[in-house]
Amino acid sequence: MAIEIERKFLVTGDGFRNAPGVRFSQGYLSHTPERTVRVRIAAEQAFLTIKGATHGATRLEFEYPIPLADAQALLALCGAGVIDKVRHTLVYQGKTWEVDVFAGANQGLVVAEIELQSEDESFAKPEWLGEEVTHDPRYYNANLSTSPYAHW
Amino acid sequence: MAIEIERKFLVTGDGFRNAPGVRFSQGYLSHTPERTVRVRIAAEQAFLTIKGATHGATRLEFEYPIPLADAQALLALCGAGVIDKVRHTLVYQGKTWEVDVFAGANQGLVVAEIELQSEDESFAKPEWLGEEVTHDPRYYNANLSTSPYAHW
Repeated sequence: MAIEIERKFLVTGDGFRNAPGVRFSQGYLSHTPERTVRVRIAAEQAFLTIKGATHGATRLEFEYPIPLADAQALLALCGAGVIDKVRHTLVYQGKTWEVDVFAGANQGLVVAEIELQSEDESFAKPEWLGEEVTHDPRYYNANLSTSPYAHW
Repeated sequence: MAIEIERKFLVTGDGFRNAPGVRFSQGYLSHTPERTVRVRIAAEQAFLTIKGATHGATRLEFEYPIPLADAQALLALCGAGVIDKVRHTLVYQGKTWEVDVFAGANQGLVVAEIELQSEDESFAKPEWLGEEVTHDPRYYNANLSTSPYAHW
């Protein structure tokens, strides 16, 4: 169990693209405003993740590693579309950023996330960082699986 | 990942009550006809379990042990009522039976389950076994959490 405090931004440049990337496939066994149950395959590793309701930029998170074959079968059980993206991870002025380049029905969408220790923790903004979308539910991955970017 | 083949019966006698019992608390992070996500505490052990849709007496099942403290926090995240029951386990003529004696909002309900290798596997019926309810969705534990026996 962990508390996740995360801020999310659109990305307006390509300065992150040399950072190493990992292919993610993820789907949702359920998602409501109160809780989501996510299946994720990240390269050859797989996880089952439960998140609680978002309050501000904060939510409860529980994550468990699961066998890859289970994750593949669970993705087939997921109701809505499976999200396909490449996550680039880089450090900028001492903080870690994760930049998700979406594919498939969310092609064209690029979103950067930073995980913080508190909601008011300060951080430097890379020059490719655009508008903040932390509070816009359209950008929740659970919502991108049912209402992908291509349909906006 | 496993295939679960299970038949379920009402219980009409007390012949099972000397068998050892374990207290179960369980709730549902989600449940739809297509899939359920269950959190279960069985004595001091906890599990996260995903089950697929039921076809006949058969469904896909994925079960993962999780820390007890996580399970307690996850039960608080569950939407509907938490199910409270004591499960008695016994062997009758070479087959294992699990008899669930429900409490709380399902007090008065006693259900016996047998897990089989195939849907047509034969088995001996204990004298306390009543009507079969395998195909009655009211007796799914996920449904007992939202529509408990006391409200029928």
